[in-house]
Amino acid sequence: MSGWVAVAGLGPGAGALVTPEVTEALAEATDLVGYAPYVARVADRADLVRHASDNRVELDRAAHALELAAAGRRVVVASSGDPGVFAMASALFEALEAGPRAWRAIDVRVLPGITAMLAAAARAGAPLGHDFCAINLSDNLKPWALIERRLRLAAQADFAMAFYNPRSKARPDGFARVLDLLREECGGDRLILFARAVSTAEEQLRVVTLAEAAPEMADMRTMVIVGSSRTRFIEGAPRPILYTPRWAE
Amino acid sequence: MSGWVAVAGLGPGAGALVTPEVTEALAEATDLVGYAPYVARVADRADLVRHASDNRVELDRAAHALELAAAGRRVVVASSGDPGVFAMASALFEALEAGPRAWRAIDVRVLPGITAMLAAAARAGAPLGHDFCAINLSDNLKPWALIERRLRLAAQADFAMAFYNPRSKARPDGFARVLDLLREECGGDRLILFARAVSTAEEQLRVVTLAEAAPEMADMRTMVIVGSSRTRFIEGAPRPILYTPRWAE
Repeated sequence: MSGWVAVAGLGPGAGALVTPEVTEALAEATDLVGYAPYVARVADRADLVRHASDNRVELDRAAHALELAAAGRRVVVASSGDPGVFAMASALFEALEAGPRAWRAIDVRVLPGITAMLAAAARAGAPLGHDFCAINLSDNLKPWALIERRLRLAAQADFAMAFYNPRSKARPDGFARVLDLLREECGGDRLILFARAVSTAEEQLRVVTLAEAAPEMADMRTMVIVGSSRTRFIEGAPRPILYTPRWAE
Repeated sequence: MSGWVAVAGLGPGAGALVTPEVTEALAEATDLVGYAPYVARVADRADLVRHASDNRVELDRAAHALELAAAGRRVVVASSGDPGVFAMASALFEALEAGPRAWRAIDVRVLPGITAMLAAAARAGAPLGHDFCAINLSDNLKPWALIERRLRLAAQADFAMAFYNPRSKARPDGFARVLDLLREECGGDRLILFARAVSTAEEQLRVVTLAEAAPEMADMRTMVIVGSSRTRFIEGAPRPILYTPRWAE
């Protein structure tokens, strides 16, 4: 079997943040599988077959990629950011485990990429410079009670926190509840970064306190980072600088 | 002032994991500052001045980079992995904040890179595919009591956990205590990944249970990832596959 699957991270948007490893896999691929907006980020090539699909069909898409590879095709599954962080890699392995035993012989690679929280952190300074956690705020795949429990424990651990999928039309109230909970656990002075569409032409950064934060500051393209109790804001620089010192007491 | 500082992430080791953005900054730089092994990873160029320094002098190195930029030089500070994750970006901003007010006008950029935990996760499947945290186990810059508290809360939150700097000669017992604590909080069946020197010729991956884990499985070049309660191992594949499903109950 000469087929393979490479689950590839395209990074947050800019071409300059796509690794050479991913560029090479795309050049060798016969098939490109992914959520339509990610497939659209890959330049056209006459002999590349494109399979763009809808959101929320991750398992079908993963199984399709594995079927193609089992038939000898060289398949890139396009993922935004890093495929291993709230993206396609887990879905791929879920489909692999549930599928025919023969699929386990397929050459499957995950090609890492620049994930949204690290791109956002870099643009804003170094808010994740000390211990931190990453939480997906979408309650599509887990109950709200678990999100709430994790947020409280993460605040008590004094982690900086990076939130993926803070807000969507399907969950208009969820993020307001998150902000309320964080104000309760961390106090109103805690710093919070809203980083929208980082590395694209629509990039917008905003640093406020939890007291000032409003749900409307985030949308589906926004990465949210809440500082730890030690996170600092540097005044007087041309761009906002937020950083968490390396040390703690 | 035409000088600048770019704190650049060189990724875990392989050239194919260095972003074009970082490659371009290196091509434009007049000066390269960093811990000697990272400076050594950058190809020589006749007009690039190299300033290699020892470990544990991060603040001096950061101040030196800012001084050079204030004098009009174009300075890359070389960082392994991603500069914002337990690396040089926080030290740079710490030095910036403590230094002369004029430094705040310097053009400082952080160029993200592939951080060790995401490179290791990609090689092993998708162990960080659900909520997770990243903890630096070095107690150089924080007390052991804080590390222990964070580990317990992270285990109670059922995060997958990525550990940087699990073990050093200066702390021979620390990692053994971490493993004991994790066995107590998570039980002996929990999966743990030891990923050494990922993306280099010395790469080694090993997946065991916490009951089987021994401190000697990690050294200074090892990234350790502990799964959540839901992390699964796929049998029968040519390489070990560890993944955490996207959903939770």
